[in-house]
Amino acid sequence: MNIQELVSKKNEGIELTYEELEYIVTNYVNGNINDSDMTLFLKAVVNKSMTFDETSNLTTIMLNSGDKIDLSNINGVKVDKHSTGGVGDKTTLVLLPLVASCGVKVAKMSGRSLGHTGGTIDKLESIPGFKVELDLDTFINQVNKIGVALASQTGNLVPADKKIYALRDVTNTVSSIPLIASSIMSKKLASGADKIVLDVKVGKGALLENLKDAKTLANYMVHIGNSHGRETVCVLTNMNEPLGNAIGNMVEVEESINTLKGYGPSDLKELVLTLGSIMVSLGLGISIDEAYKMCVTNLENGNAYKKFVELVETQGGKLELINDSKKFSIKSNQSGFITKIDALMLGELVRKLGAGRLHKDDKIDHRVGFILSKKVGDFVLKDEELMKVYLTTKDCRIDDLLKCFTIENDFKEKDKLILEVIK
Amino acid sequence: MNIQELVSKKNEGIELTYEELEYIVTNYVNGNINDSDMTLFLKAVVNKSMTFDETSNLTTIMLNSGDKIDLSNINGVKVDKHSTGGVGDKTTLVLLPLVASCGVKVAKMSGRSLGHTGGTIDKLESIPGFKVELDLDTFINQVNKIGVALASQTGNLVPADKKIYALRDVTNTVSSIPLIASSIMSKKLASGADKIVLDVKVGKGALLENLKDAKTLANYMVHIGNSHGRETVCVLTNMNEPLGNAIGNMVEVEESINTLKGYGPSDLKELVLTLGSIMVSLGLGISIDEAYKMCVTNLENGNAYKKFVELVETQGGKLELINDSKKFSIKSNQSGFITKIDALMLGELVRKLGAGRLHKDDKIDHRVGFILSKKVGDFVLKDEELMKVYLTTKDCRIDDLLKCFTIENDFKEKDKLILEVIK
Repeated sequence: MNIQELVSKKNEGIELTYEELEYIVTNYVNGNINDSDMTLFLKAVVNKSMTFDETSNLTTIMLNSGDKIDLSNINGVKVDKHSTGGVGDKTTLVLLPLVASCGVKVAKMSGRSLGHTGGTIDKLESIPGFKVELDLDTFINQVNKIGVALASQTGNLVPADKKIYALRDVTNTVSSIPLIASSIMSKKLASGADKIVLDVKVGKGALLENLKDAKTLANYMVHIGNSHGRETVCVLTNMNEPLGNAIGNMVEVEESINTLKGYGPSDLKELVLTLGSIMVSLGLGISIDEAYKMCVTNLENGNAYKKFVELVETQGGKLELINDSKKFSIKSNQSGFITKIDALMLGELVRKLGAGRLHKDDKIDHRVGFILSKKVGDFVLKDEELMKVYLTTKDCRIDDLLKCFTIENDFKEKDKLILEVIK
Repeated sequence: MNIQELVSKKNEGIELTYEELEYIVTNYVNGNINDSDMTLFLKAVVNKSMTFDETSNLTTIMLNSGDKIDLSNINGVKVDKHSTGGVGDKTTLVLLPLVASCGVKVAKMSGRSLGHTGGTIDKLESIPGFKVELDLDTFINQVNKIGVALASQTGNLVPADKKIYALRDVTNTVSSIPLIASSIMSKKLASGADKIVLDVKVGKGALLENLKDAKTLANYMVHIGNSHGRETVCVLTNMNEPLGNAIGNMVEVEESINTLKGYGPSDLKELVLTLGSIMVSLGLGISIDEAYKMCVTNLENGNAYKKFVELVETQGGKLELINDSKKFSIKSNQSGFITKIDALMLGELVRKLGAGRLHKDDKIDHRVGFILSKKVGDFVLKDEELMKVYLTTKDCRIDDLLKCFTIENDFKEKDKLILEVIK
């Protein structure tokens, strides 16, 4: 077996065996296959794709390249959640305490992010004192005690993915669906949960722009999860405008708290209830309808918020968020209906202000952010506020912000948020 | 001297002397003048009014009927604030920490309320553990230490007003401007602050419906304050729609916290900055412009919120507000501009749900309330949310809530919030 031969085979559209894929991954990780040969292989995959079986095998091989987290000491069914990431996506912060308040165990490890804003872990660090680094024993004990823990990754999970992803990133081979699926799923499987709920974002502010690709990715991931004995459900959701109103880190934590208290933005609440009822249904073995009612009740009676407070206190945080940024109001220069809000552009702008990283070692400024005052479908008057901007050391041009809003005279029906559930 | 003679004199429009007014008040308080004679006197005042001097004298006499709080052990200029009360008026909760964060001492004692919602003290009791009963020493020490204290009244302040007000309430003699002015000012003077800022609400949700009466009241109160050596400033503000979005107790505390964090409703923020800059200007002896800048800065950099947290913690509270009420969304049945929101009717409805008292011994339900999603001048679409309703044990009719909103096709310019400053 050698890599040139396997690249040719792939380029001819022949399915690779488990052993062949294992040869490629193992030898790339240990340095026997160099970057340029690996790039040729990745490009072959981008062009010819991979079958369900190949992708599932690739996932297993990547999974076996590193540590696996053993959550068997946690009593009960553990349900994990993952999002492919989107602008304003603070869902995890609301969802996890909600689901835990319903009695489902949630042991979530989360990476830091190279996204427009920080990842869940970075967002949580907006809370003074909140400790995201827990050793595995502490992590497991906490889940057994209060039902939920949210920590940064421990152990060396899926080193093969780290090395391969770094190469994909610089060789324009990110956008292959089997490669995305195996990358996400190998990490999810390594994290040790029994069941997995995936939120696949579709639209301009998301990894995948069109519904067809997103559906394919969802089908791959559900297949991989199920073939590894982990029941997996995928929800396809719209990311053509930011989720909720807040984009940033501290502002997103604030919005999550408001949502847990019952007055968050309606789209965020809808998404949380959709994902929450699936997680609770999987975790407790009850119907989606029963689980939905349980989620609504626990959001409204304060139980979900209480669980959030318990989570924060247990991990050393204090819910006194102080945002000393400079705050500005961006007003509309015309009246009309808002027909589009460019999530991607807003994401790029907020990252430039310091909310997110471009490089792994960039520091995040938790205080900067945007809060939308209007969403798609809203009517705005001339001189009425479109959004609030929270700045610290960096500035941005008002015109760039205004360009993110498309304002027209006709009102079109709003896109649905929840596009499809695949299982 | 006897009461019949003095009533006749008043009915003839003759100014009563200090001694004559003192005779009436003292003898009514000690029972020598009965309710029916006193009612005749009050009716004469309603009809013939009182001069500045009579009103100022009446205030002094009432003030002397009870305890006066001695705040001389507090270092620095103490500035007090009072509002004639309005629907959604949570100004004090935001204003006091803001002003204190600028270095002005605020020692505020507040009564419970017979209003549509609880008073400031009741609202604060939405915060778990928050102690509103402080003895005078603790109260004074706290102001010296952290610059602010907010407690329920101690001591027997202005018992004459209590007795006279109870009679006015049942004899339809509340609406006399000199009687209102002396009632408010005697209590303010007894509370011991050096300078007084008054927020006189005008409009349908307020004590006074028209601007002319409100102006007269303001002039009386400024005259009384100044003639008692306490610099007094009156701000006349619009109360034709509720202030801010939240109406209730816990929901108003939440909105106050949001405002302290920089993203409250714009009308509340405007009022807080207007009153705050006057208080800071009086307290520190700086210009209104300088004081305004200081207030904006401390609201934006989180110092005001930090002070609020310090106040809450010092008085034993924990900022974990859990609202387990049932939450409903009220949607508009037509599209158009919102031209009026009936603050008074919303106030009555929220009181009926349990947010306020009709009788002194009624218990308040801190959890019930309304949160407006739209304000006057906003455009609403059919089926779009007008407000959120938080209910517990009592219910209300959707149609009654919808009637509070007037929706028309034409947009009229919004009334100003700050009508006039009188000093």
